[in-house]
Amino acid sequence: MIGRLNHVAIVVPDLAAAAETYRTTLGAKVSDPLDLPDHGVTTVFVELPNTKIELLHPLGEGSTIAKFLSNNASGGIHHVCYEVEDIIAARDKLKADGLRVLGDGEPKIGAHGKPVLFLHPKDLFGTLVEIEQV
Amino acid sequence: MIGRLNHVAIVVPDLAAAAETYRTTLGAKVSDPLDLPDHGVTTVFVELPNTKIELLHPLGEGSTIAKFLSNNASGGIHHVCYEVEDIIAARDKLKADGLRVLGDGEPKIGAHGKPVLFLHPKDLFGTLVEIEQV
Repeated sequence: MIGRLNHVAIVVPDLAAAAETYRTTLGAKVSDPLDLPDHGVTTVFVELPNTKIELLHPLGEGSTIAKFLSNNASGGIHHVCYEVEDIIAARDKLKADGLRVLGDGEPKIGAHGKPVLFLHPKDLFGTLVEIEQV
Repeated sequence: MIGRLNHVAIVVPDLAAAAETYRTTLGAKVSDPLDLPDHGVTTVFVELPNTKIELLHPLGEGSTIAKFLSNNASGGIHHVCYEVEDIIAARDKLKADGLRVLGDGEPKIGAHGKPVLFLHPKDLFGTLVEIEQV
């Protein structure tokens, strides 16, 4: 069912510094920062030849990643995102197998303008997993 | 400098259960478990179309991931691995830019039979990064 690894999301305490390190020290292609107020994040995309790293920083009140950053002051790897062809079929299969879908269980439009869902990390070995219909 | 994302490593408390979930629930192609005593891990490779997930479990005494698992009983994302063309040139550039290389600073032969180094997570926003010469 799962296809490509769409991205790895890394929460960072200083987005400009992290973007600069990925650009100049790691030598990667790095986007300008993009505010996504609906998601409570500002993101910088690091484009690798086969996938993306998404550097995330909280934006606004009640950002879902603010608590992660307060628990992990240096930052850290937040989630992985796997692509699926049909997010409703994927969700129903995962739920039938006992995985919990976060929120109200209905897909939201994610940072790339496509439907996404998050799965409970306790059901996937401590890993927060996003699935995205591509 | 960094190229492809070679893999994402996820430490899990029960390797057989995790492999089975990735195979049957997530529908991915999953390898048999492989003991890597020199690295203190047993690993299962999850093959995605564009990269790999490596499920890791401690093997033997003094495994470097045993402490991670004792701190994260459910498991969690342990590191990301970026490919480089020349690991010595990469190491020297990263050190010149102030990043700390773990261990004695000399590449070791990694789980794929190729030279690897790990970079200090405090220098990369809480993310443990492996570089691998491919």
